[in-house]
Amino acid sequence: MENKFSGSNSGMEQQKEVKIANQRGGTCEPILRILALVLTLTASIVLRVSKQTEIVTMKVIPTLPPIDIPATAKWHYLSAFVYLVVADVIACAYAAFSLVLLFANRGKKNRLGLVVIVLDLTMVALLFSAIGSTGAIGLMGYQGNTHVQWNKVCNVFGKFCHQVVASAALSLLGSLAFFFLIVLAVLGLSRTSK
Amino acid sequence: MENKFSGSNSGMEQQKEVKIANQRGGTCEPILRILALVLTLTASIVLRVSKQTEIVTMKVIPTLPPIDIPATAKWHYLSAFVYLVVADVIACAYAAFSLVLLFANRGKKNRLGLVVIVLDLTMVALLFSAIGSTGAIGLMGYQGNTHVQWNKVCNVFGKFCHQVVASAALSLLGSLAFFFLIVLAVLGLSRTSK
Repeated sequence: MENKFSGSNSGMEQQKEVKIANQRGGTCEPILRILALVLTLTASIVLRVSKQTEIVTMKVIPTLPPIDIPATAKWHYLSAFVYLVVADVIACAYAAFSLVLLFANRGKKNRLGLVVIVLDLTMVALLFSAIGSTGAIGLMGYQGNTHVQWNKVCNVFGKFCHQVVASAALSLLGSLAFFFLIVLAVLGLSRTSK
Repeated sequence: MENKFSGSNSGMEQQKEVKIANQRGGTCEPILRILALVLTLTASIVLRVSKQTEIVTMKVIPTLPPIDIPATAKWHYLSAFVYLVVADVIACAYAAFSLVLLFANRGKKNRLGLVVIVLDLTMVALLFSAIGSTGAIGLMGYQGNTHVQWNKVCNVFGKFCHQVVASAALSLLGSLAFFFLIVLAVLGLSRTSK
């Protein structure tokens, strides 16, 4: 009898723990989705508005002496930066869509949760690949490479490069929000698993 | 009575379904881990052995006419390729380690499963960022960019570029194996959740 009672008590405690954990997960999930939305939106805006014009000395015709001409750095001149903006916009739109889904399906248990986890995972993959590509091109612009004779450009377009770094950092934080959303979902599932 | 009986039957069927699903997951998991190991190992070897020497016409001293000199393309000349090799080696070592863990903990239920899912997710993020960086530098080598005056190099080092593409494609397949391992784990957890 004692054993049965203690077992029932332990079962109740376990249910209580799962409930508390689910409540915590329930509070964290919208916060993380809003964070992901804000971070990816800001990252795309920061890169989208980045532009810098500088006067550079260039040899336009080999037989003539070099002349000073204005040169402009824009985000859409490099495919890697376009990829980051597109990835950020997709992740931002998905974060908004998943937030609507979250509130519309509050308390209901259906297969949509699984689809959301897989889409969160897709966002992690998409954002990390875009951050990787921007990081590689950004590093090349900062350091240059003598082997392929690609000169550094960040010594001229410093402000533009800083904006690219800021956008990549914000995107990284956004992708980490999606990362922790998956960890949270897996933790929630393992708590309620038999 | 009929209802109770049918309920019990439905419960048994559900248990059977979960068992079959878990068995399927149990077969798929080692296969996917072995695939991830083989793919990331091959990707790192393909990029590690990539090397091409070509005779290029270069102006070494501006006042003298251009001369033909041998130029070599190696994987460690570009940070993005070094990053891909390192990421592949880490993912390969982790795939081997997780396989050992999987067989050592067969049938046991512990918190290790959660740690493995989080590490699988980390591998997805790591590999996708490395593939993104290699893709960006590879595309720059293939197309060049007039805005930053970075000339294409794949017209000279074609074989080397093809090896980079092969390595990136193999790494992508390896990262997809980790991606599906997470999907599989989440599906397994949701099937056994209350």
